[in-house]
Amino acid sequence: MRQSGAVSLPEPARRDTRLDPYVFDYAERTHGLTVSAVRALFSVANRPEVVSLAGGMPNIADLPRDELSEVVARLVRDKGIQAMQYGSGQGEPFMREWIVQVMAEENIQAHADDIVVSCGSQQALDLVTRVFCDPGDVVLAEAPSYVGALGTFRAYQCDIVHVAMDEQGIDPVALAQSVVSLRAAGRRVKFLYTIPNFQNPTGVTQSVERRRQLIEVAREHDLLIVEDNPYGLLTLEGSPLPALRSLDADRVIYLGSFSKTFAPGFRIGWVLAPHAVREKLVLTQEAATLAPPVFSQFVISAYLEHFDWRGQIEVFRAMYRARRDAMFTGLVENMPEGTTWTHPRGGFFVWVTLPEGLDSQAMLPRAVSARVAYTPGTAFYADGLGSRNMRLSFCFPTPERIIEGTRRLGAVLAGELDMLRTFGLNLDSTRHLDLSTGPAPDIS
Amino acid sequence: MRQSGAVSLPEPARRDTRLDPYVFDYAERTHGLTVSAVRALFSVANRPEVVSLAGGMPNIADLPRDELSEVVARLVRDKGIQAMQYGSGQGEPFMREWIVQVMAEENIQAHADDIVVSCGSQQALDLVTRVFCDPGDVVLAEAPSYVGALGTFRAYQCDIVHVAMDEQGIDPVALAQSVVSLRAAGRRVKFLYTIPNFQNPTGVTQSVERRRQLIEVAREHDLLIVEDNPYGLLTLEGSPLPALRSLDADRVIYLGSFSKTFAPGFRIGWVLAPHAVREKLVLTQEAATLAPPVFSQFVISAYLEHFDWRGQIEVFRAMYRARRDAMFTGLVENMPEGTTWTHPRGGFFVWVTLPEGLDSQAMLPRAVSARVAYTPGTAFYADGLGSRNMRLSFCFPTPERIIEGTRRLGAVLAGELDMLRTFGLNLDSTRHLDLSTGPAPDIS
Repeated sequence: MRQSGAVSLPEPARRDTRLDPYVFDYAERTHGLTVSAVRALFSVANRPEVVSLAGGMPNIADLPRDELSEVVARLVRDKGIQAMQYGSGQGEPFMREWIVQVMAEENIQAHADDIVVSCGSQQALDLVTRVFCDPGDVVLAEAPSYVGALGTFRAYQCDIVHVAMDEQGIDPVALAQSVVSLRAAGRRVKFLYTIPNFQNPTGVTQSVERRRQLIEVAREHDLLIVEDNPYGLLTLEGSPLPALRSLDADRVIYLGSFSKTFAPGFRIGWVLAPHAVREKLVLTQEAATLAPPVFSQFVISAYLEHFDWRGQIEVFRAMYRARRDAMFTGLVENMPEGTTWTHPRGGFFVWVTLPEGLDSQAMLPRAVSARVAYTPGTAFYADGLGSRNMRLSFCFPTPERIIEGTRRLGAVLAGELDMLRTFGLNLDSTRHLDLSTGPAPDIS
Repeated sequence: MRQSGAVSLPEPARRDTRLDPYVFDYAERTHGLTVSAVRALFSVANRPEVVSLAGGMPNIADLPRDELSEVVARLVRDKGIQAMQYGSGQGEPFMREWIVQVMAEENIQAHADDIVVSCGSQQALDLVTRVFCDPGDVVLAEAPSYVGALGTFRAYQCDIVHVAMDEQGIDPVALAQSVVSLRAAGRRVKFLYTIPNFQNPTGVTQSVERRRQLIEVAREHDLLIVEDNPYGLLTLEGSPLPALRSLDADRVIYLGSFSKTFAPGFRIGWVLAPHAVREKLVLTQEAATLAPPVFSQFVISAYLEHFDWRGQIEVFRAMYRARRDAMFTGLVENMPEGTTWTHPRGGFFVWVTLPEGLDSQAMLPRAVSARVAYTPGTAFYADGLGSRNMRLSFCFPTPERIIEGTRRLGAVLAGELDMLRTFGLNLDSTRHLDLSTGPAPDIS
């Protein structure tokens, strides 16, 4: 099949000497796209001798792979002609019906028609941002917020304004003030992006009372809420709280995902939106990808149908609870005085605040040399804050590795504090790595 | 797990009486997003009693499903922990290595590092457009061109300028003139989008001589070429021609897909780009979806490894050849005098030009009532042309159904011509359906 008699052409008349011949041709929106210096560090962090507390990958080793393989085999044999074909730009109807059932666990009542399946909930957020945001629009986000979301908002040339949080979640008074003052200054505030459950990166959960207050503020100020909820069912204590969407169906766009409750590799998430918004989301998705992965939807639906998926979540909870508890134990044992951290009741992350004078960004190369990695807090802010913070993940390493990781981290911190006391200043405080693109996706 | 003691909130203070409370909040880029009136017709066209010659769905019934199911089962059992996990934002290395081998069939030499795997080649085009195009930029396309691509360019608020084609492909003189005059008028021309092999919708293939001329024009005028090649291996006569990318590696961005040579439901395509462009594409994809479907990449790679994929393409070719030949037979038998059509040597589509006075858009409802569907030519133009054309697909119906379809179509055309002669005009010529979003993805 190779082409015989290949065509040979004369040398091009002009030889471009620029390193990148297209340097003047890129769209404006790409000017913020830079490869993060942290990327190089994180490829080192992925070496087996490094304990990585930087990642966000769920531990899927407990999935019933043998039984799943039989179900998937049957799928290919019996439904392969549909499962391997083009599908609906809105997502397969049966997939959306299953999503209705999954969301009911968090009190959401919805109709399958109002759901748009996407290539992961990351794409759901991308579609929502694409439908609503013009360059220069403002998106409100918690302080701090998920690095992948900040990247998406930047990709659409939005301005991100952070709103204060405390241990009960976003501060509704600060939110209202922010909306009022931004609009008074003539800015268009398109929506608030919030992760109410076991937030990435802080692990903080919005209390029920705060949810109620947040909805009231949103109603009073005519503010749209985008609720991102990948971890809601991964409670490690108590029961899931009611989703914001269950408190207000008109004002909340809800993003969901199977990545943490089942597995990420199928790239299936969804958005639940009011009808008119949903129409635009479907058209936008069709222009972007034609349709979300069809085969993946068949697999996930078969899994939900044939397996005790709620029971599997219980298995995950027990596993993550042990890891979280190991993290707590390790932090108590190994963190220097003056270090504080959040106490998440679910999810994957603990948010650490370092003693004054330390800089988690500057410290990262030394930590990786000491064979432990974390995600510096600055990755989760659009405004340069976060240098006293670290996000520590307990989802992927074993409990033993987690404790070893905190031990190594403690040693690094002790060394940093020593330098601080000896020299009286943080030698790296003027040098900052570019974290604007955040870590690689497998550790978002 | 359901939340007990559900929180109840007071009624919202203001009740929005607009049908769409967000009508003023959408981004500018959505203003062109409308649900095509043709959509409704196409859902009718999908009923079994209608012979649909409108679609673009490959016929995948010949895939070896039983054997494939065993391979996929082994994949889940033995590699499930990797296959169901988050993956690389650039696509898995082994997938990219396979793509290098597949592209070699069309004389392309590439390195796996220069490939970005995407959620279908539709997303590959979306990413390229996103990286290069600002609102108001000009994209050049053949006249006519693929409806899904036009939708993508519109989604980024580009202006589409069509360039004339003939039976050998795009006219390089017309292309050069277009570039020169657009730039003289101060417009930024970002790239030419071309489908050189068995073009969707015309079925026309760019001759080797035209490819050479096209590259020369591109070099002389510093024009970037985006080469979209989903059908190149589906030759029904002769061998594949050398890809444009094989004639110039610096100036051509190449889009490929497994949708037609394997199956569409996995949503795996790719873009082969110069290095600096590739960096931006990866970052853009990570912001959009984190990573392309990982499980799908494992399945496709396993397929390429364990099956005679070239032999399968031969099987597809024979099947599509029989269908194309049935289309030719049916057209010769049933089209009224004055109808002409292209003679594709591969791919899925025949492009029909109707006798003067007929309007394929206006005629479509009557055709569907007569239980035959096609895609009106106007879907494939950004500038309103195409009302005398129809795209007929021979990929999905059986040869018998195809002939039946042409019979029904012939009857409809005969009726239209009759009306024309009797009344002396086309009664529908003033009424046009909105095809700007084109048909649904499964019939693109």
